[in-house]
Amino acid sequence: MTAGPTPIPPRVSQVMAEPVLYHRAPAFVELYGSVLERLKGVFRTQNDVLTFAASGSGAMESAVANLTAPGEPVLACAAGKFGERWIELAEAYGAEVVTYAPAWGQRLDPAEIDRILGDHPQIAVVFATLSETSTGVVHDVRAIAEVARRHDCILAIDAVSGLGAAELRQDEWGIDVVVAGSQKALMCPPGLAFASVSEKALDFASERGNGGYYFDWAKTAKGQRKDPPDSPFTPAVTLFSALDVALEMIEEEGIEQVWARHALLARATRAGVAALKLDLFGDPGENANVVTALQLPAGIDGGKVPGVLRRLGITANGGQNQLKGKILRIAHCGYFGAFDILTSLSALEMALHELGHDVDHGVAVGAAQRVFVESPVPTAA
Amino acid sequence: MTAGPTPIPPRVSQVMAEPVLYHRAPAFVELYGSVLERLKGVFRTQNDVLTFAASGSGAMESAVANLTAPGEPVLACAAGKFGERWIELAEAYGAEVVTYAPAWGQRLDPAEIDRILGDHPQIAVVFATLSETSTGVVHDVRAIAEVARRHDCILAIDAVSGLGAAELRQDEWGIDVVVAGSQKALMCPPGLAFASVSEKALDFASERGNGGYYFDWAKTAKGQRKDPPDSPFTPAVTLFSALDVALEMIEEEGIEQVWARHALLARATRAGVAALKLDLFGDPGENANVVTALQLPAGIDGGKVPGVLRRLGITANGGQNQLKGKILRIAHCGYFGAFDILTSLSALEMALHELGHDVDHGVAVGAAQRVFVESPVPTAA
Repeated sequence: MTAGPTPIPPRVSQVMAEPVLYHRAPAFVELYGSVLERLKGVFRTQNDVLTFAASGSGAMESAVANLTAPGEPVLACAAGKFGERWIELAEAYGAEVVTYAPAWGQRLDPAEIDRILGDHPQIAVVFATLSETSTGVVHDVRAIAEVARRHDCILAIDAVSGLGAAELRQDEWGIDVVVAGSQKALMCPPGLAFASVSEKALDFASERGNGGYYFDWAKTAKGQRKDPPDSPFTPAVTLFSALDVALEMIEEEGIEQVWARHALLARATRAGVAALKLDLFGDPGENANVVTALQLPAGIDGGKVPGVLRRLGITANGGQNQLKGKILRIAHCGYFGAFDILTSLSALEMALHELGHDVDHGVAVGAAQRVFVESPVPTAA
Repeated sequence: MTAGPTPIPPRVSQVMAEPVLYHRAPAFVELYGSVLERLKGVFRTQNDVLTFAASGSGAMESAVANLTAPGEPVLACAAGKFGERWIELAEAYGAEVVTYAPAWGQRLDPAEIDRILGDHPQIAVVFATLSETSTGVVHDVRAIAEVARRHDCILAIDAVSGLGAAELRQDEWGIDVVVAGSQKALMCPPGLAFASVSEKALDFASERGNGGYYFDWAKTAKGQRKDPPDSPFTPAVTLFSALDVALEMIEEEGIEQVWARHALLARATRAGVAALKLDLFGDPGENANVVTALQLPAGIDGGKVPGVLRRLGITANGGQNQLKGKILRIAHCGYFGAFDILTSLSALEMALHELGHDVDHGVAVGAAQRVFVESPVPTAA
């Protein structure tokens, strides 16, 4: 039930147990090219999607390292833990950081971003988040992209947990940089990070040259643009094997259908939460299709929920930082189908009961079932 | 036959196909602690071994990012492609780089390093290499550490391909920083990088604060020193599962015996090369126990050797950069036993024959066999 690392489909797991490939052998070179091509389909882009052996935060760091210079002003938007990571990163690189930080659980307001950029015309780069894993909110990055474009700013979006779950059309929406990781809706283990970078952003970065070495976009772009494509550093070959299979599964299902499946799973989850008369956390809106964050009842010790769930055999995320003990997050991000949601809701009902909350057993499961009966979801496999 | 990614033992491969672990679930927390403890045994250190989801170059970057500051002088030693990476990294970070760069294939001369440090008393950091994968040379880092200590310099050693193959006793030899990767003698896929950092080096780094974010030593050290240990970024959980099994295998064999096995495999390889009347490349010395680099005969088109070997079913490394077509590298780094060496030498004999070289078939294999008959090597499994 966690928002990452998420469950891995058996087809993906098994391929990692095959003999390891030497990264310059023809079999891996072909696989590498296949993955690079398939990634474009998920990002909905014609950009080269730069790949790094790293956690998702490594790809975020690549964006900050390549797009900022010490003392240059940037806007970092944050309404949760991962938005705040943009602020920490930009500060670590010595940028002059203007922040837009509404409360955790709020949605970023494009009009407010418009106002801030109007007040700070010297800002050339904006950092924001698609899916804020800590709160469940999916931000309207399409509208943010319009605002950024109007102010002639480069926009970098953290889509680590959003990519492949929430609708995202990088090129159509005009987003310069999208970063992501392998361990969320891409249904792979953690260890690969991605940065889909437009030509405009590559040019902008090349004038700065602050990208360090390992995360330097120009270095990786140069390798990936060779024929055949090459990596400047030893790639994480088993994770590439896994990703190729996972991306093939996404292609088979179709990215639009993948988004629709996530939307349906989220709708069913919200129906279950509502049937329990619990509130969602914050103001997630209709597009919160990655993680459902719900407010735990005031009458129970919320900090005990993950432990009770664990004894039931369910690994779940509570809240992070100031939300510890206050919320529970039910993930529907990646290799999830209807019965995973029904299992999560069953576990939630049983855990709330065990902690003394009055539960009408089956009410959440029943409400979610009714959503699925109206709109059947095909299994992800 | 490649020097990395190297073959993975079946016990290690299989564990990666198991269900993925959430990185804050008790099962992973226990595994994480186990790996951190076991790593100390391979580095022969009491330091916290900092771990990163990255290629080995990421750990090298961490050393440069944390130990240098723009304009500060450092000494970078390079006698091959990976030594040169220290120079490139230090330049990317704006250090004032003094280089000691004897020809590829030479061994770093501690006396020369002593002289350079004497001439540049303002140098506080020295970067050097244990096993230079591009040439097969294993440098005498013990003697280099003595020199560095005499000049009160921090020494950082790239042991990416050397760790677990060539003798290395970090604490006993007084090496401040050792960096390594998962995909060489540690018998795992690529994607994990390590930096074993002394307290002295951590203190030195904390005065600089140039470590960025993802590779910031203080951030990772703080997480790993919690009880239970934690990672500031999502760890590459499947690779940790693999590494725990691989480190258990190394413990079962015993690190001293692992080094002895590599020394024996190298001795047998050198005997085979000598029996073919071929020369080793450069001046590798008696401790070149990771990769044997041999000069290809002048009469054949050396660039064709890897392709011919591939048709025989063997993936092998030729030379890199200026050594392309001139050398062949036979790896004995990680999960290698006697029959792997005999297979490599058989393939070499057949490939040389196919390219028109006069080969007494079996002569190299016979010579290597005689080494193994005198000193049997237990299988690595």
